[in-house]
Amino acid sequence: MSGLTVGVDVGGTKIAAGVVDEDGKLIASTRRETPATDTHMVLEAIADGVRELRTGHEVVGVGIGAAGFVDAARAKVMFAPNLAWRDEDLRGELSMALDLPVVVENDANSVAWAESRFGAGRDHDDLVAITIGTGVGGGIVTNGRLLRGGFGVAAEIGHITMVPYGRRCGCGLQGCWEQYGSGRALVGEAREIARHSPAFAAGLLAAAGGDPEAITGEMVTAAAQQGDVGALHCFDEIGRWIGLGLAQLAAVLDPTLFVIGGGVSAAGEVLRGRVEETFRANLTGRGHRPVAEVRLAELGWESGMVGAADLARTSDDSAVPGSDR
Amino acid sequence: MSGLTVGVDVGGTKIAAGVVDEDGKLIASTRRETPATDTHMVLEAIADGVRELRTGHEVVGVGIGAAGFVDAARAKVMFAPNLAWRDEDLRGELSMALDLPVVVENDANSVAWAESRFGAGRDHDDLVAITIGTGVGGGIVTNGRLLRGGFGVAAEIGHITMVPYGRRCGCGLQGCWEQYGSGRALVGEAREIARHSPAFAAGLLAAAGGDPEAITGEMVTAAAQQGDVGALHCFDEIGRWIGLGLAQLAAVLDPTLFVIGGGVSAAGEVLRGRVEETFRANLTGRGHRPVAEVRLAELGWESGMVGAADLARTSDDSAVPGSDR
Amino acid sequence: MSGLTVGVDVGGTKIAAGVVDEDGKLIASTRRETPATDTHMVLEAIADGVRELRTGHEVVGVGIGAAGFVDAARAKVMFAPNLAWRDEDLRGELSMALDLPVVVENDANSVAWAESRFGAGRDHDDLVAITIGTGVGGGIVTNGRLLRGGFGVAAEIGHITMVPYGRRCGCGLQGCWEQYGSGRALVGEAREIARHSPAFAAGLLAAAGGDPEAITGEMVTAAAQQGDVGALHCFDEIGRWIGLGLAQLAAVLDPTLFVIGGGVSAAGEVLRGRVEETFRANLTGRGHRPVAEVRLAELGWESGMVGAADLARTSDDSAVPGSDR
Amino acid sequence: MSGLTVGVDVGGTKIAAGVVDEDGKLIASTRRETPATDTHMVLEAIADGVRELRTGHEVVGVGIGAAGFVDAARAKVMFAPNLAWRDEDLRGELSMALDLPVVVENDANSVAWAESRFGAGRDHDDLVAITIGTGVGGGIVTNGRLLRGGFGVAAEIGHITMVPYGRRCGCGLQGCWEQYGSGRALVGEAREIARHSPAFAAGLLAAAGGDPEAITGEMVTAAAQQGDVGALHCFDEIGRWIGLGLAQLAAVLDPTLFVIGGGVSAAGEVLRGRVEETFRANLTGRGHRPVAEVRLAELGWESGMVGAADLARTSDDSAVPGSDR
Repeated sequence: MSGLTVGVDVGGTKIAAGVVDEDGKLIASTRRETPATDTHMVLEAIADGVRELRTGHEVVGVGIGAAGFVDAARAKVMFAPNLAWRDEDLRGELSMALDLPVVVENDANSVAWAESRFGAGRDHDDLVAITIGTGVGGGIVTNGRLLRGGFGVAAEIGHITMVPYGRRCGCGLQGCWEQYGSGRALVGEAREIARHSPAFAAGLLAAAGGDPEAITGEMVTAAAQQGDVGALHCFDEIGRWIGLGLAQLAAVLDPTLFVIGGGVSAAGEVLRGRVEETFRANLTGRGHRPVAEVRLAELGWESGMVGAADLARTSDDSAVPGSDR
Repeated sequence: MSGLTVGVDVGGTKIAAGVVDEDGKLIASTRRETPATDTHMVLEAIADGVRELRTGHEVVGVGIGAAGFVDAARAKVMFAPNLAWRDEDLRGELSMALDLPVVVENDANSVAWAESRFGAGRDHDDLVAITIGTGVGGGIVTNGRLLRGGFGVAAEIGHITMVPYGRRCGCGLQGCWEQYGSGRALVGEAREIARHSPAFAAGLLAAAGGDPEAITGEMVTAAAQQGDVGALHCFDEIGRWIGLGLAQLAAVLDPTLFVIGGGVSAAGEVLRGRVEETFRANLTGRGHRPVAEVRLAELGWESGMVGAADLARTSDDSAVPGSDR
Repeated sequence: MSGLTVGVDVGGTKIAAGVVDEDGKLIASTRRETPATDTHMVLEAIADGVRELRTGHEVVGVGIGAAGFVDAARAKVMFAPNLAWRDEDLRGELSMALDLPVVVENDANSVAWAESRFGAGRDHDDLVAITIGTGVGGGIVTNGRLLRGGFGVAAEIGHITMVPYGRRCGCGLQGCWEQYGSGRALVGEAREIARHSPAFAAGLLAAAGGDPEAITGEMVTAAAQQGDVGALHCFDEIGRWIGLGLAQLAAVLDPTLFVIGGGVSAAGEVLRGRVEETFRANLTGRGHRPVAEVRLAELGWESGMVGAADLARTSDDSAVPGSDR
Repeated sequence: MSGLTVGVDVGGTKIAAGVVDEDGKLIASTRRETPATDTHMVLEAIADGVRELRTGHEVVGVGIGAAGFVDAARAKVMFAPNLAWRDEDLRGELSMALDLPVVVENDANSVAWAESRFGAGRDHDDLVAITIGTGVGGGIVTNGRLLRGGFGVAAEIGHITMVPYGRRCGCGLQGCWEQYGSGRALVGEAREIARHSPAFAAGLLAAAGGDPEAITGEMVTAAAQQGDVGALHCFDEIGRWIGLGLAQLAAVLDPTLFVIGGGVSAAGEVLRGRVEETFRANLTGRGHRPVAEVRLAELGWESGMVGAADLARTSDDSAVPGSDR
């Protein structure tokens, strides 16, 4: 499919929609608040955003990136933690409302696809993109294709178990990766040292007006970039866990590249360097195999839209189960 | 490619070669001991086996399954723990010696491919096959293709970390899955209870003539199938760890099927049922997503040959990186 | 010292004071709310309670049991998490205000002493008493004496690490025992299964009106005693962790008895049996050494007062550091 | 009891006996090989050593320090891993053979007592002495007395669980402290890095003639003291685990001092500094309580004899259960 497509990034608070061209360039975009309490109104808001963008551009397809479990047919959202959708047929309802082809994809998968096509991974066919925000998400590209899994739920990588009987996770399990290597963990570590080792956390406490509970991820990142020892310790902690997680994924998937994105990756080399060091030290078979690169993401907030839009364009030939590229 | 192909399974002690037809049927086979100390003699032994088989059958290609890291081009063995190969160009040397097309693949990947094409997974496009022998190996099929990884080293699943700072592994890391969910772990558990809780291990000790160190995996399996409490406890232990590992893999890969094979799977339902129970209880998002099946492997000792032979036939259109199926 | 003494149990919400005789019998008692915001008013409330009791009884000493770190001289509270005391000289101020000898002791130590003298451990000289409430506290009696530690802070047993990098604890560490084997853990487990496995938790949800967050420890205990499978699972979990903790303590201290008390011990044999089973299976050197008994506490809410009162009576000859060597 | 006593240190390969005066000074000593296969011959060898020493000195009692579980009466060795003793009445047989009072004590307890009376802890009443050799042993002194436990088996501290489901231990459990913080662990770590990261372990490999399996603890210690990075890494590892273990013990026992002895402590400050750092960072309630010191042992190979001899002298008034209450 050639021409312009629209990518929609559906989050718990905002819906962002954008027109994207064949080179992954965002040409126009619009936003709406997410009317989270009413599943039908969310569909209306998505359709409304697409219609606005079509007034100025010839659009040939729509890709939706949504936080949740999307089925293997790329049509239904089976479950979305922050929205009320349960087995919601987004593709059916939106393609009828808009008279356009629609594909639905998990949001972290959309981001991974965007980085793979137009971002840090455009020269790689086998990569894992990790999105480190409050939690940890991810998407896998293998042999140039998005790995969707047999039921469409692949790459819930934030929920591999790092610590048996470890910290409780909102998913119902214990010791999930995202309890140790996420933005939430970064802030948790910072507040903990502020409460129990205030001298060590003096820089962080100063930034937060003396209140441990007021420390934010942005404060930790800013302090770390200025060399604050307490803040760097927090990145030591999460960087180590993220690197250990990459080593698990490399054992299973053997990508040639890891792309680190999401809000926490704003820390840049402070994070990347720590992650890479632990990853390399914990890779099985080290010394006898090539080692994947670890890069920071190149695309920003628009990557979800860009990836979803590109999947709308390419899904016929590369990403629909059972078809070829 | 149509016609008969030869599959070769190269192990540390035996080389098995067989003629396989397009339906995965083994038509003829031959064996040789592995001359492990001399890498060139191993190549000779492989070539000799293929030549013997060609005397009676029209063979159009050769697939080699070898324990070790095979490169992305399916040509070289970069590293083999039980053989002296280091960056050994098996494809180059054997295709010249035999004047036939040759592909090389990791042995556990070959087994996974065989189960996926002709065994327990022939009705599935997304599966993970786990080979539980002394250690734990595996192969991944996603969207009907073998996942080889960017460097060719994918699916070293026995070395995902289950226990931080856990038992030392021969790979140099600590707490690897195969230290907990393998045949070695089964026997280790059995000997441990025999040493420290002889009453509980009475059945196992009786089978081993009273010597804890004489207990074998076969003894534990036989005793478990007769309901011996000590032996069942050993399967409780490894079954739980195997199930936990499947839950990790499902979080990342979302297959529709797990196939459990290898020597330990001879225990049958004693093992499968335990594995499935723990897998289901530890799957992230349980209740909101479909759950993969857990089946026992259907092919036996010949699966490595069958898979390698089939990869030789199908590699042009499905399994060589960059080509289509 | 012979005669009647007063024991005072100072908690975050209530102050309970009682007259106790030489046989550990509570003769009279009184209560006040804890004026938590003002450290001086807490002292006043304690003194007021003791004065009320003295009007009807001849009292020869006062023992104070307080949640917090008490110094080696049994005089000062160095730190109390729920009160504002910091290096508060309770003995100095109260003995002057009341003109009576005063000793101060940690509350869980007081409880352990009471059980050791008059409760489940009155026939044992070497015991550990575990108080399982919201958290986990404890006290150690060795060779008939209370083990106070060199600084007076002994037996913070709820904070031994059970899981490296495990659940965060309010003490600033990770993986502390009380995050796994306490009333809080019991309720946490119950709510978790209610959220993620509602069918399994049907009995608990029914008791809580369908709201996972409304489940209380009392509900779990009541349901477990009626055989509810979900509730019993919760006791399986905490019982196992409590038993593992006893095994750690036995390795270090080798008591002849463990006494299990605190609010969670109201579950009785449902808890005790599970604890004992795991304890026995995880005792180092099992088979080559005698194994400690595990009993439920015999004293109830009054044990803190009884223990503190008895320490006031006996401190001259058995429990004041340096007094009798 | 005043006068000279004999202390005997009974190990798996050597029996050492010495005359010790009231100031803990070793006046004369003698050695024999341990006739390990015959329990009666071990008794004969002990008696023979004592008789030799009595020819030149007036001896009033004998203390035996033995690796194993000694009963509460300090008479019998219930179990000794390296000798064939099972419920062996050492006191009965030796006191009859020698016509002298005899006490029996665990060897690590004897060492702890010696350090407490005459070594690094002579100014402390509450200490834990850790003996770090191939494994980890220990002894506890609380309020000036040796803590023997109710059955006599106290302070098997090497077998507290540091890692759930961790490395197998010879005691039958998993994850015991001595699998992580001992001389065996030090050598294990060194050999592992030599096998898998030879460049990092270049100094260690040079010392061992290039063979990872030839690396010894002495080599690691010597290299670390010269600043070798690989060797220092090994001490980082075991120092961290030892420090974590001290934090556990401090939570329970609250000593004012830890004494680090045994063969591995020959590394001196290289070990002590690392241990103290981790101990301090992992102490529950840090900031609100005094922190124990960490010192190196002052006594050497003779400490087992000296401790056992002193226990023979002082057992009447301080260390026999039930003697002085």
